[in-house]
Amino acid sequence: MSELAQGIDEMAVDAWVVALDVGGSGSRLVAEFGNSTHPERISLSGRAVKVSHHGSDAPAVVASLCQSFNAWAARMGHDGMSDGSTAPVASAAVGITGLTSLVEKPTDVHDILARELRTNRTAVAGDALTAHLGALAGRAGAVLSVGTGAVAFGFDGVSRWRRADGWGHLLGDLGAGVWVGGEALRAAGRYHDGASRGASKRLLEAAVAKFGLIESWPNQFYKNAERARQLASMAPEVMIAAAEGDPTSIRILEEAGRHLADTLSSALGRGIPPLASTTGRLVQEESPLTVSLTKHLSEDRPDVSLVPSAGSPLDGALKLAQRLRETPQSVAGFRPWLTVRVDGHHTLHEAAEDMGAAETLTAELSATELPGDELQ
Amino acid sequence: MSELAQGIDEMAVDAWVVALDVGGSGSRLVAEFGNSTHPERISLSGRAVKVSHHGSDAPAVVASLCQSFNAWAARMGHDGMSDGSTAPVASAAVGITGLTSLVEKPTDVHDILARELRTNRTAVAGDALTAHLGALAGRAGAVLSVGTGAVAFGFDGVSRWRRADGWGHLLGDLGAGVWVGGEALRAAGRYHDGASRGASKRLLEAAVAKFGLIESWPNQFYKNAERARQLASMAPEVMIAAAEGDPTSIRILEEAGRHLADTLSSALGRGIPPLASTTGRLVQEESPLTVSLTKHLSEDRPDVSLVPSAGSPLDGALKLAQRLRETPQSVAGFRPWLTVRVDGHHTLHEAAEDMGAAETLTAELSATELPGDELQ
Repeated sequence: MSELAQGIDEMAVDAWVVALDVGGSGSRLVAEFGNSTHPERISLSGRAVKVSHHGSDAPAVVASLCQSFNAWAARMGHDGMSDGSTAPVASAAVGITGLTSLVEKPTDVHDILARELRTNRTAVAGDALTAHLGALAGRAGAVLSVGTGAVAFGFDGVSRWRRADGWGHLLGDLGAGVWVGGEALRAAGRYHDGASRGASKRLLEAAVAKFGLIESWPNQFYKNAERARQLASMAPEVMIAAAEGDPTSIRILEEAGRHLADTLSSALGRGIPPLASTTGRLVQEESPLTVSLTKHLSEDRPDVSLVPSAGSPLDGALKLAQRLRETPQSVAGFRPWLTVRVDGHHTLHEAAEDMGAAETLTAELSATELPGDELQ
Repeated sequence: MSELAQGIDEMAVDAWVVALDVGGSGSRLVAEFGNSTHPERISLSGRAVKVSHHGSDAPAVVASLCQSFNAWAARMGHDGMSDGSTAPVASAAVGITGLTSLVEKPTDVHDILARELRTNRTAVAGDALTAHLGALAGRAGAVLSVGTGAVAFGFDGVSRWRRADGWGHLLGDLGAGVWVGGEALRAAGRYHDGASRGASKRLLEAAVAKFGLIESWPNQFYKNAERARQLASMAPEVMIAAAEGDPTSIRILEEAGRHLADTLSSALGRGIPPLASTTGRLVQEESPLTVSLTKHLSEDRPDVSLVPSAGSPLDGALKLAQRLRETPQSVAGFRPWLTVRVDGHHTLHEAAEDMGAAETLTAELSATELPGDELQ
């Protein structure tokens, strides 16, 4: 056993594993302490990322959550170190929405994690990866994430990934919150205009209650930098209207389910085992959308097992942090969707060689362009 | 006959009538001199408006075209005034894309027209009105304008207007260039993702030839302030692909035609005579879109006569300028879609009273919110 590996094993009992999920509707941190059979666990909530023309402020959200964690740990007496500081953090992983098209430099996030948590093993991943690790608990297969946007990732368990959709609201996100909300507002506009087709009085009323007079909508939406999220905020109204029997809403959700089934089928291409799960608010509850998605998937791909999600993207981030602590070489297959930094006792290159993963654990693995929810 | 009316009649023989069309793909000025049976006519071209977060720079485009006109008139010897200046301008009218949601102050445009052309009769209209006046030559009925966006206006010939669509690319513009281009790019993305439904290899190839590798599209589109226009720039490729037999492109154009027929039908509501025309590049040529539009309109509204367009929005602006010169009270019915200024020999209120149109020819008629092509 190398010096590094020994060092890690010694830490294992008395160190934290920290995971963060930084998203468009909020952010969370979870930390586990002690051995994995009876871990002590703490959860903290933080604010949502803000997206401006300069990109997302995810690094600031990460810093703020880490500082909250440190404050909590100090207050709760987890300051067992001889120098009076808090107990060490063995590893930390963060899943960030829209990485890396929105977060300009993942390096910044590594720096923040290293500085705030004083750990030498960090992973910065797109939330598509953490969603996959959470929903299928690390197994191979495909996971469909439906929020403001929609994206599905298939993983063969080794190194092959297939992505479907995730192109943002202008180029894709078919069946996602932004698509459902947009269809609803267009049906509302049709009713207002007096059209006989594709029009819904029920949705116009719901939208006016939510956004005010229709004449004000263009200014509201086209001047809003977060227009995709604003469109998606209409989706829950469509769920309600569908539950109340509005035929246009039911049709919109049925079509959304068909689109989402197409997206999931695409991610379940050659080499990906026929196991699938979905994650996200819109596909959680029983609704015409879920019914349609399940129906179309079973028609198109009767071989696929659609299983309930085993956990959230935050659970996935925690799984990633645990792997990074225990078997860092096992994250090699996730390479396209994250950057990993391991620069502890050794220089990075030596450390990587020690662990037999020199090729994958380079200082900053270049992350593939990954359009996410927040693209406007 | 009042003093004002006399003054106008005296000018009629030796004065210009000037019209401008200021649009998203270019701008034009046309001026007629002399009597209406054998007018001298000049045409000038200018640049397209640019739309930024501060609105459109239409006033600058108007100023530039007017200055070009003055330079031309001076050079060609139309300087018949005793003070050595060019011949007078009796009236000027401009149709502007997206007025008034994008042009913050139509007053500025009136000021520019008055200053540059030294005229006391100016009209600043949305291009929907000038398109209507051009296509139906001033008759009552409905006109559908299809460009980047789509909007239809029905007019009863007196004062009642019905608008349909024109909600911009997020909330409407169904069947318009931005809708066709968006559908095409989504079909391209579907093919790239390996989807079996709604996917087109032909459109992916065309789009990659136009925009580069698909991985670069999110950055190109979501960071582009003129993303609607960029999406619409894909529409001609869909026309080409459809002509070559691409089934997805044919389906997209057929659906677009159905949407546009719905929009036109909505504008042909109660009180609007069943006469219709269309204007815009996308509906000019014979294509699956035009075929579908005509078919669906004749199915839904067999009573409607769909007639060829009598003229362009620029022709409509010229018609507006002529009316403003000869019978300014006749533009009263256009009130929702333009602002008019008449402040010549008399103060405005007196002038208006003289012409028996005190109610309509107020200094600045408030223009109704009119979302146009350029809304992002």
